[in-house]
Amino acid sequence: MRNLFNKSKKSHVNLVEQDVEVTMNVDEDSSFGKQLQMVYLTKEDLIVLKQIKPWVVENIEEIVKQFYKNLEFESSLKEIIEENSSVERLKKTLIIHIQEMFNGTIDQQYYEKRKKIAYIHFKIGLEPKWYMCAFQDLMNSLLKVLNENISDKSYFYKAVSATTKILNVEQQLVLDAYQSEVQQAH
Amino acid sequence: MRNLFNKSKKSHVNLVEQDVEVTMNVDEDSSFGKQLQMVYLTKEDLIVLKQIKPWVVENIEEIVKQFYKNLEFESSLKEIIEENSSVERLKKTLIIHIQEMFNGTIDQQYYEKRKKIAYIHFKIGLEPKWYMCAFQDLMNSLLKVLNENISDKSYFYKAVSATTKILNVEQQLVLDAYQSEVQQAH
Ligand code: HEM
Ligand code: HEM
Repeated sequence: MRNLFNKSKKSHVNLVEQDVEVTMNVDEDSSFGKQLQMVYLTKEDLIVLKQIKPWVVENIEEIVKQFYKNLEFESSLKEIIEENSSVERLKKTLIIHIQEMFNGTIDQQYYEKRKKIAYIHFKIGLEPKWYMCAFQDLMNSLLKVLNENISDKSYFYKAVSATTKILNVEQQLVLDAYQSEVQQAH
Repeated sequence: MRNLFNKSKKSHVNLVEQDVEVTMNVDEDSSFGKQLQMVYLTKEDLIVLKQIKPWVVENIEEIVKQFYKNLEFESSLKEIIEENSSVERLKKTLIIHIQEMFNGTIDQQYYEKRKKIAYIHFKIGLEPKWYMCAFQDLMNSLLKVLNENISDKSYFYKAVSATTKILNVEQQLVLDAYQSEVQQAH
């Protein structure tokens, strides 16, 4: 794994005859660096994520619409949203957020931004179990989009693998933010 | 979704010309019932999980070996294991635990057992972020096994979809157990 974490800011790797520029700029000895290594998130995964981004972008309205529709199962979630924001406003931020996961860049800024967003959810009282449900709704939508757009099984496997990893990393950051807040509060 | 939660204990559904018996016996108005609905975990998913179980069983030794090898990235995890148990002992329980995820049964007992295991991890001080990394390691191994054994893309999609859902449910239960403990402790 070590060589995947070289310190150069940008790197070019060939895959499926395409030149795709990705950035993995994380200190490999930091906790976050270790977390990335433990889930085997590599530059190859970042390339795949960037390659499949157009399909995510194409379907983003539908993905986000489904996301907020799904929250209606649990009335307390609707209430949290109404008290703190509005579905219309949140849709806009979520559209940006999801697309960024497919930018092919993981660095300190990516890390900080995600941690901050997790804190916001902790503060509005969103329970981790519902947070996880929301992630799975996203996963369901993304798998559907990938399935509809990729016919080659071997590439579909790569796309699915990379997508599960980047969503898992997101969950790690969320939970770590919750954990830090709990520890500080008590 | 409602009809997927009918109250009969067992049901037979045909899929890929096979008769597979699965059980989804959860009160749909309970929090857990809502969680299952929010991730769209259906009886069809349980059937697929039961169908792919043989491949998981066939590769279980390798999956579990990789699982504990992966924990070596973070020395504190090794220490937690040595202080509380041993890799050899844990391998045995993990083998059972993973296989159960593919039994095609979700009921109160499944729920209780998983919550109890989550509490155990909370008590030994396992941080949620490492727990999540371990889940992704499992996901990586399972995707690899599925990819190697399923050539049909459409069935591979179904298998992947069901697998991401059952792992997500597991994560929900883990986090909820952690959350309850934190709330009780303070
Ligand atoms: C996959 C899970 C989720 C993602 C990726 C996500 C993403 C985001 C993002 C990007 C923001 C904007 C933060 C900012 O202002 O910079 C946000 C805010 C917010 N989210 Fe979520 N969210 C998720 C789940 C949920 C759920 C399940 C709820 C249900 C209650 C929720 C409720 C809110 C609310 C109320 C805000 C506004 C908070 C405020 O501005 O004070 N989110 N979310
Ligand atoms: C996907 C994640 C994991 C699963 C599914 C899992 C599963 C299990 C199961 C089934 C048991 C047996 C509980 C019992 O005695 O009934 C157990 C115990 C244990 N696990 Fe895990 N585990 C996971 C992650 C981890 C990690 C990352 C560590 C690293 C420190 C860990 C350390 C332990 C220890 C030390 C015990 C024994 C606790 C005791 O008996 O006091 N587990 N785990």
